[in-house]
Amino acid sequence: MAKTKPTKTRRPRAETPRGFRDYFGAEVTERARMLERITEVYARYGFDPLESSAVETVEALGKFLPDVDRPNEGVFAWQDEDEGWLALRYDLTAPLARVYAQHRNELPTPYRRYAVGPVWRNEKPGPGRFRQFYQCDADTVGAASMAADAEICAMLAEALEAAGIARGDYVIRINDRKVLNGVMERAGVLDPADPERDAARRGIVLRAIDKLDRLGREGVRALLGAGRKDESGDFTPGAGLDDAAAEIVMGFLDARREDGAATCARLRELVAGSAVGEEGVAELEQIAELLAAQGLGPDRVVIDPSVVRGLGYYTGPVYEAELTFEILDEKGRKRQFGSVAGGGRYDDLVKRFTGQSVPACGVSVGVDRLLAALRAVGRAGDEAPGPVVVTVMDRARLADYQRMTAELRAAGIRAEMFLGGGAMGKQLKYADRRAAPVAVIEGEDERARGVVQLKDLALGARLAAQIETNEEWKAQPAQIEVPRAELVAEVRRMLARAERG
Amino acid sequence: MAKTKPTKTRRPRAETPRGFRDYFGAEVTERARMLERITEVYARYGFDPLESSAVETVEALGKFLPDVDRPNEGVFAWQDEDEGWLALRYDLTAPLARVYAQHRNELPTPYRRYAVGPVWRNEKPGPGRFRQFYQCDADTVGAASMAADAEICAMLAEALEAAGIARGDYVIRINDRKVLNGVMERAGVLDPADPERDAARRGIVLRAIDKLDRLGREGVRALLGAGRKDESGDFTPGAGLDDAAAEIVMGFLDARREDGAATCARLRELVAGSAVGEEGVAELEQIAELLAAQGLGPDRVVIDPSVVRGLGYYTGPVYEAELTFEILDEKGRKRQFGSVAGGGRYDDLVKRFTGQSVPACGVSVGVDRLLAALRAVGRAGDEAPGPVVVTVMDRARLADYQRMTAELRAAGIRAEMFLGGGAMGKQLKYADRRAAPVAVIEGEDERARGVVQLKDLALGARLAAQIETNEEWKAQPAQIEVPRAELVAEVRRMLARAERG
Repeated sequence: MAKTKPTKTRRPRAETPRGFRDYFGAEVTERARMLERITEVYARYGFDPLESSAVETVEALGKFLPDVDRPNEGVFAWQDEDEGWLALRYDLTAPLARVYAQHRNELPTPYRRYAVGPVWRNEKPGPGRFRQFYQCDADTVGAASMAADAEICAMLAEALEAAGIARGDYVIRINDRKVLNGVMERAGVLDPADPERDAARRGIVLRAIDKLDRLGREGVRALLGAGRKDESGDFTPGAGLDDAAAEIVMGFLDARREDGAATCARLRELVAGSAVGEEGVAELEQIAELLAAQGLGPDRVVIDPSVVRGLGYYTGPVYEAELTFEILDEKGRKRQFGSVAGGGRYDDLVKRFTGQSVPACGVSVGVDRLLAALRAVGRAGDEAPGPVVVTVMDRARLADYQRMTAELRAAGIRAEMFLGGGAMGKQLKYADRRAAPVAVIEGEDERARGVVQLKDLALGARLAAQIETNEEWKAQPAQIEVPRAELVAEVRRMLARAERG
Repeated sequence: MAKTKPTKTRRPRAETPRGFRDYFGAEVTERARMLERITEVYARYGFDPLESSAVETVEALGKFLPDVDRPNEGVFAWQDEDEGWLALRYDLTAPLARVYAQHRNELPTPYRRYAVGPVWRNEKPGPGRFRQFYQCDADTVGAASMAADAEICAMLAEALEAAGIARGDYVIRINDRKVLNGVMERAGVLDPADPERDAARRGIVLRAIDKLDRLGREGVRALLGAGRKDESGDFTPGAGLDDAAAEIVMGFLDARREDGAATCARLRELVAGSAVGEEGVAELEQIAELLAAQGLGPDRVVIDPSVVRGLGYYTGPVYEAELTFEILDEKGRKRQFGSVAGGGRYDDLVKRFTGQSVPACGVSVGVDRLLAALRAVGRAGDEAPGPVVVTVMDRARLADYQRMTAELRAAGIRAEMFLGGGAMGKQLKYADRRAAPVAVIEGEDERARGVVQLKDLALGARLAAQIETNEEWKAQPAQIEVPRAELVAEVRRMLARAERG
């Protein structure tokens, strides 16, 4: 028998767990700047920041995931010696409910708060789907008035514009769960006197309309009726509505008219006789009136019954912000950018803690999607400029180079001294990698003559792209010599030119 | 036998797990502003932001806790289906090592990065000791030069001033682990030819001097010799140094002289003949020279061998920032505020991933402590102003009140419409709780006359504190009536007055 090999100490793999990632440089600053612009609007609307603990008891967290597409997704949880099961928050809404229940005696009512931070989902990672990502939420707790919903929608519009989305490039669409309930009554699957009856069929209806984007009208229509066979041959049983009932539901999805008033009139027809349905239409009318009072017209906010995302989760109005400009998808086809934020009214979140129902509504911005949109339209902000790099020709004179660097920094100029080892070629390569606009060079000769060389790397890069002949190249002032005393002033001039260039 | 009681559905407790907390309003914005000022300095020094994943594999995280006081503290960890054991990061240094090892081919070398974010420690919570807290780090990876250490110290000084600590209210003290190693050689507990020998005794010496703050000189001296009996009668065995050897170590702790040159000269005497010790002294001299070149004198940075925190963890220079002004402790006694940041050189962190030693150095700011210090000296920033509150006298005219609110917001004024239910008294109470500077009131009568009432709550609060008689009170313009069209202009005037007040 062969001897067992001696155990080799295994090195740990230098990798994030799958589904997690790191963010570098501009990825961090662009997101921070976007969130700053958004939260500046939230603050102006009277919303206060809240940063709740990232860790909650599993008990407090409960199960309130709004995303009906992924009902099985879980949380990252572990058992604590003293505290029982703990978990990372999976959104910012469940913690808000806990915070409000815990601190309700000290908080103002209504309580307007915004929150920004990472959340964690224990689900299978996929391309572009991460297990840690940012959310940016604003919610009003303790206000039953539709004015709270209208305010959230107006604020969302202003926040999108502050972030860099031009007016006309987005639209906020509003629907109402109560109108759908009215439609369900009219379709015969919701009896106000016995709301438990037909719950299963209503579930099928809800799931069916929630798939409108994916399956189209025909697919939804099939699921409302007998059922639907998909491409693979699998059969999904339908809600079993008769044609008349199914047409009422389909009529709801198609109810959008040329303006809000006409849409509401059409919805009133569809829910006629249903108390909850008429209440829902009245809510939409009130929101439309309040938005108009704030100067938000249909170019920014529309009543649109085809908004179905979240209808299963929210209890009243539902809102969704869509970007309407086109981008190219991975196959090079044009398509609308789509949804970047969504929200609505959810009146029962705090109840599980206190036993009392507390009205609440809010919106969540998809931080990564909005940032991707801003990048797509070139509005994510300028790339952070690289630092001026002070090179080190003579290691014995580090203090002199350090002094130059300090002078530049004191003048507010981003600057570094090269801290590694290596010859000038390596140092200039480093400067390139840092996207340095200028490199400062001072050798023995320059030192003796009281001058420094300034290499305009930004200009050099532009010239390299333009210039065809060697003669042209030499004629360009990509490197100049200036008196040592004029270092700061001259670098400043070069940076100003680089910015204009 | 009694029947078992019917099971009652238990409501979840609305509480953070012990050791975790929420941050509200100014707690969030003050910290964000402080970190923004600090990272602005870091960026000017050429450092790039990095936001690494909060979750790491336990394998990648390893065990690198710098805090020798709490060797048993752990991490929050759980077993993932596919990824094995995962954990929340316990600091920002271990993730940096992983990130650098993972991305070293794409990152510039040297790599300067800063990072800001929460870290988690699975330790027993105590008063003021939380299991989630912020860190703010800056590190340079891949630079062996002392210029990297000097730069970190200069940057730290500038960052503290940018945050709001006045020059003269802080000092950055620098020591060097290699000097201590030289002292160990001279004291006979470190043989360069056989470094494994006496490792246990050196451990005792290290732990002893690390307790200087707590035990004082006498306690440390006892632990260097035979050992020490504490107040409870427990005996801790000492390192067994003879008197001459112990005096060399004590001499190290007492080596600070009137200036850096004199201190270095004294250290040179203490380590004479030890190569590593002399190397350490040379490092301190070089750092002092580079700091002087950047204009940092002994009013901001000093060489001080009594800095012992982290000497067991770091491999070269060690730095610590202390605030020198006095505050009152919980017992009303004056004491120096103390340490708010610390760091040093650690050259072996990346090696466990790659097998190659990579030089690195950095600093970590104690975010909560520095923020507490800024609050103590009144420099944490102004309290965020409360919003102007537009009250609702007539619920049928919500849209009008909403329009006023929108006008104020459009003028850049933080404003809210009252969204709750209740009479004027309750609404003004709400405005008080919101620290509203102004309340806007428009009833039927005002509406008919085209005016609004503006209640100057900021002025009202000041007057309430000053005014003694009712007559004086009535003479004060704490509530004025203005034409509706002048709402925005008049509110703006009142806010300007409140700011001056």
